[in-house]
Amino acid sequence: MNSFGERLRFSTFGESHGKALGCILDGVPAGLKIDEAYIQSELDRRKPGKSEFETARKEADAVEILSGVFEGVSTGTPIAMIIYNTNQKSKDYSNIKDIFRPGHADFTYFHKYGIRDYRGGGRSSARETAARVAAGAIAKLMLKKLDIEVMSGISEVAGILSENYDYEYAKSSIIYALDPKQEEAQKEAILEAKKRHDSVGGASRVVIKGAPVGLGEPLYYKLDGVLADAMMGLNAVKAVEIGDGVLSSRSFGSKNNDAIRKDGFSTNHSGGILGGISNGDDIVLHVYFKPTPSIFQEQHTLTTQNEEVDFSLKGRHDPCVAVRGTVVCEAMASLVVADMLLLNMGRTMEGVTKYYK
Amino acid sequence: MNSFGERLRFSTFGESHGKALGCILDGVPAGLKIDEAYIQSELDRRKPGKSEFETARKEADAVEILSGVFEGVSTGTPIAMIIYNTNQKSKDYSNIKDIFRPGHADFTYFHKYGIRDYRGGGRSSARETAARVAAGAIAKLMLKKLDIEVMSGISEVAGILSENYDYEYAKSSIIYALDPKQEEAQKEAILEAKKRHDSVGGASRVVIKGAPVGLGEPLYYKLDGVLADAMMGLNAVKAVEIGDGVLSSRSFGSKNNDAIRKDGFSTNHSGGILGGISNGDDIVLHVYFKPTPSIFQEQHTLTTQNEEVDFSLKGRHDPCVAVRGTVVCEAMASLVVADMLLLNMGRTMEGVTKYYK
Amino acid sequence: MNSFGERLRFSTFGESHGKALGCILDGVPAGLKIDEAYIQSELDRRKPGKSEFETARKEADAVEILSGVFEGVSTGTPIAMIIYNTNQKSKDYSNIKDIFRPGHADFTYFHKYGIRDYRGGGRSSARETAARVAAGAIAKLMLKKLDIEVMSGISEVAGILSENYDYEYAKSSIIYALDPKQEEAQKEAILEAKKRHDSVGGASRVVIKGAPVGLGEPLYYKLDGVLADAMMGLNAVKAVEIGDGVLSSRSFGSKNNDAIRKDGFSTNHSGGILGGISNGDDIVLHVYFKPTPSIFQEQHTLTTQNEEVDFSLKGRHDPCVAVRGTVVCEAMASLVVADMLLLNMGRTMEGVTKYYK
Amino acid sequence: MNSFGERLRFSTFGESHGKALGCILDGVPAGLKIDEAYIQSELDRRKPGKSEFETARKEADAVEILSGVFEGVSTGTPIAMIIYNTNQKSKDYSNIKDIFRPGHADFTYFHKYGIRDYRGGGRSSARETAARVAAGAIAKLMLKKLDIEVMSGISEVAGILSENYDYEYAKSSIIYALDPKQEEAQKEAILEAKKRHDSVGGASRVVIKGAPVGLGEPLYYKLDGVLADAMMGLNAVKAVEIGDGVLSSRSFGSKNNDAIRKDGFSTNHSGGILGGISNGDDIVLHVYFKPTPSIFQEQHTLTTQNEEVDFSLKGRHDPCVAVRGTVVCEAMASLVVADMLLLNMGRTMEGVTKYYK
Repeated sequence: MNSFGERLRFSTFGESHGKALGCILDGVPAGLKIDEAYIQSELDRRKPGKSEFETARKEADAVEILSGVFEGVSTGTPIAMIIYNTNQKSKDYSNIKDIFRPGHADFTYFHKYGIRDYRGGGRSSARETAARVAAGAIAKLMLKKLDIEVMSGISEVAGILSENYDYEYAKSSIIYALDPKQEEAQKEAILEAKKRHDSVGGASRVVIKGAPVGLGEPLYYKLDGVLADAMMGLNAVKAVEIGDGVLSSRSFGSKNNDAIRKDGFSTNHSGGILGGISNGDDIVLHVYFKPTPSIFQEQHTLTTQNEEVDFSLKGRHDPCVAVRGTVVCEAMASLVVADMLLLNMGRTMEGVTKYYK
Repeated sequence: MNSFGERLRFSTFGESHGKALGCILDGVPAGLKIDEAYIQSELDRRKPGKSEFETARKEADAVEILSGVFEGVSTGTPIAMIIYNTNQKSKDYSNIKDIFRPGHADFTYFHKYGIRDYRGGGRSSARETAARVAAGAIAKLMLKKLDIEVMSGISEVAGILSENYDYEYAKSSIIYALDPKQEEAQKEAILEAKKRHDSVGGASRVVIKGAPVGLGEPLYYKLDGVLADAMMGLNAVKAVEIGDGVLSSRSFGSKNNDAIRKDGFSTNHSGGILGGISNGDDIVLHVYFKPTPSIFQEQHTLTTQNEEVDFSLKGRHDPCVAVRGTVVCEAMASLVVADMLLLNMGRTMEGVTKYYK
Repeated sequence: MNSFGERLRFSTFGESHGKALGCILDGVPAGLKIDEAYIQSELDRRKPGKSEFETARKEADAVEILSGVFEGVSTGTPIAMIIYNTNQKSKDYSNIKDIFRPGHADFTYFHKYGIRDYRGGGRSSARETAARVAAGAIAKLMLKKLDIEVMSGISEVAGILSENYDYEYAKSSIIYALDPKQEEAQKEAILEAKKRHDSVGGASRVVIKGAPVGLGEPLYYKLDGVLADAMMGLNAVKAVEIGDGVLSSRSFGSKNNDAIRKDGFSTNHSGGILGGISNGDDIVLHVYFKPTPSIFQEQHTLTTQNEEVDFSLKGRHDPCVAVRGTVVCEAMASLVVADMLLLNMGRTMEGVTKYYK
Repeated sequence: MNSFGERLRFSTFGESHGKALGCILDGVPAGLKIDEAYIQSELDRRKPGKSEFETARKEADAVEILSGVFEGVSTGTPIAMIIYNTNQKSKDYSNIKDIFRPGHADFTYFHKYGIRDYRGGGRSSARETAARVAAGAIAKLMLKKLDIEVMSGISEVAGILSENYDYEYAKSSIIYALDPKQEEAQKEAILEAKKRHDSVGGASRVVIKGAPVGLGEPLYYKLDGVLADAMMGLNAVKAVEIGDGVLSSRSFGSKNNDAIRKDGFSTNHSGGILGGISNGDDIVLHVYFKPTPSIFQEQHTLTTQNEEVDFSLKGRHDPCVAVRGTVVCEAMASLVVADMLLLNMGRTMEGVTKYYK
């Protein structure tokens, strides 16, 4: 259960403070130029320690390709990538060795597996998402060949909402803010919480541009369903919306239906998906992250020996996981779309016969 | 791609106006008493035509078990169930034969498959969810044996929010309302829209009580991720929240973390899931439905010949799909939890050796 | 675990003496003309009671399509097919209600599931293969469009080997014999065993003509591996060979390697598969069936109460399951090849970009 | 398609002459002591260059665990293992850069993927099986806890058959011979062929002792079907038999049925599997390997430019792949059985309720 995708399938391994983490990406079509510098640049966008808005843990996050690429080109065989951990300070965690940190998966992993891997959350740490970003970068290379672009940015921090969505601007913003006008307030909210030894939540808005009509496999591998799984499965995510999302449910059919015209849909309340299948319009989703559970205020919890204790965390943590999280959302969206592109081939006999004749 | 689940897996077939619809439910443990009357009663909760709040299409939705049950007990082999369509009026649809109804999947199915099955949306119709409810009823029978209960109700119609969640009350409410105090206003909103030939959205709240700690398979078959997929994949759903959902992202770590005490969690902002694994608390989710796309006002759209037309739908439709939708949410949640129960077996060597020795 | 295939996936249901059996075939590309008479004709080839070489149980095996076909053409949605049982005589089995028939799955099903469905073996009966043949017939319709043909016949009965393989002849032979010269001796062997209340084994040879180079997904969904699974999973099959099979292992590299020339391979020891991928030559396999375990001589066995008993079976049974089995081998081979055709699409970026641009 | 197994699932990566090869093993229950020295010892049994009966290529085949193990014990998270290639001589292959070696997968990979990774067969090389052996070693550790043992040896070389099966003896035989009396003749056959610059085929016999009744998931994940896939998918394998295999098909029901007695089955023609499910007896299979396709005699083939050429291979190759292949058969059988053990849990409601209550 550490794999995702049907035709483009990645499997990840590794813990926060183990030797290494990485992934096998299976199903990349042969003949794709694999730009390693680009993959590294995507990892650099996610890597920690770049600013005061992020955890102080510094990781090189240098990715190495072990297989599946020959003379710079994908061979159609599995692409394995590895990232060695260099700055794991397991000692940091000796004081929480027996403590279940509230809001974390410590409690549930211990009860499920009967094992306490206390080193920074072990497998449940968001550090694992580095492997997703590496895989997502290759998916993006595939999508580029088909003129599909996946972009994202922070649409909300601590309830401060972006009013405009400038994806180009977000790329250079230190917090990936979509709205330059809200960026300062959003930054302040993060630093303010940090000062109080607290954390804040936020949201990411992801857009997929250029996807053809027809992506998504009804009824149980729908584009929106799989995107929801991909996003909800990310650390700290508690809600996912497609298109107008919650607001749709407060609207009327007469307003919410997107009229269809020769040049496309008049509006895009649907977020580019109808019946679980892309309709050719921009695919839009919002992903909501809870505040980082790691805070430095005193908290009440249990030990593995079932004793109640009050304790304060030490260590290095992101004050707002949504910031680096948006990069991971992009990666996951790219992997889903690439998978759906491959799945969609062969849906008509016309397509099949054309392919083989 | 018409199957769902890993260890308890169901596959559905059938179109809105075909001969029959049904499912194969695979992986039901042998030795479960299969109460057919109970399965039928669950279908009756979902079936159309029970009140003015629902479509006038009447269907008996009588379910028949074809296999997998011998002398009233599951045999461990696939349980096939069939529901014959009795009241399909394909003629109703002859006037929209060439028209893509806005908000529906007509446009996307046509472009994906190159085929126009105009009979009530064909496979994309919510009628298919009858099969899910039949499968879900068997999942519920399994869960009962383990003292797990899945309940739900309408938490919101047209922006009118329930303030209390009385699941017992919801069972007897004609619109499955959770809050008796808001029920009247919610009903009025539905009838009001209906009068205007319009439709309204709404939301369902689902709770799973009694689930043990440990359900959910990280990192890519997490309980929250799979629930999100299960719900987002339902017709008309545009957003899914776990626990506090969107509100979590506007909170602070110090408030959002649930303290852990000997007798359980002090609060339940997390919705009973940490790191994708159930924590023993109530599992809570919200599912948001857009307004029914079928409305009787004039709309602008395209034909299959790519001509712009204005038209008005005729026929019989739910003014608020969330109402019957909540029954389907319950079924899907039950199927997910039952699947996770089976998957969780064998996660520790201690469990494996105990099972075999 | 009652499904087979990745992109063309079928799920079956039903027991030997239940109400009905059938299948859902998922992944059939849209736009395929579905010739129902052809599907029925394939079922007729497998159906019992056609001659003295087969069981006397008579079944109409009339197949009905329930979904997935509109106006005679596949819509891309799941095709459900149902075959009602008409001639089940459960009473025949009351005398073996508590007896594990040797060579049958009675013993293993009982211990696995804790249930005794004594009616003709229940789910474990070869009667289930009717559903495979129905699904296989649709696969064959797909293959025809691509000029691929799957044929088979009996290559061996009771050690009497065919020396020539005339697939056209086999079609009209009552025992599907490939070699007219051996047919009589093979028939006699069957009748001889039948007279002695015994049964005989046999083998089927399957050939797939016209498959393109490139089918098969290494390393764990190889064409030969999946064919082996498909065949070994059939009732009574105990061995599978690809190409020269066992004989290859008694040969030398210098003889066994097939030289490659401009006009193809000089020989076909490999059976058309190299590295798990089709090489463009005929794909050839042999499937070996044990003698029918149902015989009318006295046998020694246990009861469900763990008592040793001697008993003699009554009822109606095939004296040589290989005969009707060869039709099922063909169906399975067709399903595997059709699945592999769909899987192979999207293996190169060139193919992907051509498809979408 | 580079993964195998359902509940115990491994995914491999790596090419013969790439940087490294390895695997992710997912689904190992938490709490299993992981004996690294044992894993290495299994790899040592498979590693090349140990004697004149094997290729002269020397590889340390040192395995390193990257994740999933904490303080010597499995944590329930994916176990990644890596083996660096140290002795890859890609130059050896420059002379066959454009040549399709007969009997190899060169031709089919090139046509499927449009890429020529000429370095020792790239992904299609049997070198990948080192990763299988590493994964298999962990499966064996699991099986030991349940008193299940998987053993194997060479039952046949160049048509010289073993008449006795001494699995203990095989462990110390340089060619893993099962029959000390036939060993010399078998060795001579290998060296004789080697002298002639030729190669020979052979067969492995695998036995699984101590497996409980009930392993195997009918109807499409049967124990025999999956074993057949696992074995047929190995490099050079062309036939698989369960129990008496081909001989069964030349027998009679009265002889081939195994009588069932209180203390077990009187005979074991079935090879321990009935209806695809283990019956508690020894599970027995034979796996047939063709002669190594790499020979040093002149051969006729094509180039990637479609020119006919005659050429002679150089390099280092096993004269009989069955020898080292038997170690891989054991690994695959162990992985299949461990997977089936996990799958079988939860097949009865009694088992499920006992587990959770």
